[in-house]
Amino acid sequence: MGIEIERKFLVVSDRWQQLAQPVFMRQAYISSTPGRVVRVRIEGQSAMLTLKGKSSGISRGEWEYPIPLIDAEELLSTLCEQPIIEKNRYRIDLDGLVWEVDEFVGENAGLVVAELELQSESQAFIKPDWVGEEISHDHRYANANLFKHPYSRW
Amino acid sequence: MGIEIERKFLVVSDRWQQLAQPVFMRQAYISSTPGRVVRVRIEGQSAMLTLKGKSSGISRGEWEYPIPLIDAEELLSTLCEQPIIEKNRYRIDLDGLVWEVDEFVGENAGLVVAELELQSESQAFIKPDWVGEEISHDHRYANANLFKHPYSRW
Repeated sequence: MGIEIERKFLVVSDRWQQLAQPVFMRQAYISSTPGRVVRVRIEGQSAMLTLKGKSSGISRGEWEYPIPLIDAEELLSTLCEQPIIEKNRYRIDLDGLVWEVDEFVGENAGLVVAELELQSESQAFIKPDWVGEEISHDHRYANANLFKHPYSRW
Repeated sequence: MGIEIERKFLVVSDRWQQLAQPVFMRQAYISSTPGRVVRVRIEGQSAMLTLKGKSSGISRGEWEYPIPLIDAEELLSTLCEQPIIEKNRYRIDLDGLVWEVDEFVGENAGLVVAELELQSESQAFIKPDWVGEEISHDHRYANANLFKHPYSRW
């Protein structure tokens, strides 16, 4: 088990766009129950099955397994809850940390969030000027909720 | 994806016990929703994460991934729905087929079922004299239901 410690923010300008090239991701959930999340994700030609446990603050247990791309395609179309979430992810290296900016498409178009994975809950970091309000504790922004209650319908 | 085609039966005598040595299994579910089953199983020193799709008759899609034993122990104790199912499995080779006899313990003690995995739904087979009534379509006997509604409380 790894521990995922992650802070999430809204994005307040487009200045991040010039900092990285996007990769397209498709993901969906076999289980989206809080504390028992089972996610299938395809990124380019690679695919991952990820299990996520109960959140404690901004931390939670995470188990990740690479799976064959063909399995992931089958799982997305047959086993996963619909609809699939689609987004462009920009990985931006800044001050030794990696900001992941997710630009959602489809029913969540218009939503852009920035995630920062940390080594500890108290780890300090510099917030770039394109990073706005923190939404780490607002569960509406969890991907496992966004497919059920997409941003366009808020 | 593999297709699991399986028939399940009650067992009517103890004559199967002398035909194989048991292996002890512990398993539980991250999702037990019909059509979206996510199972963690430990058998001896090996562990498996298995996804199962919607049943169509006695068939359903199945995806299996070996996972580290330590992950499986963590998943069984933290992520999985409780309680865990524990059983002794006897694999019995007969006429080129493998009968898997599951002798449940704990809250399902007293229940013994025999499963037969087939290559096609219409595949013929010889029923040994210790195999009784077919329960393939009785969902009470699904392991994903037995932990919630154990045999001792029927």
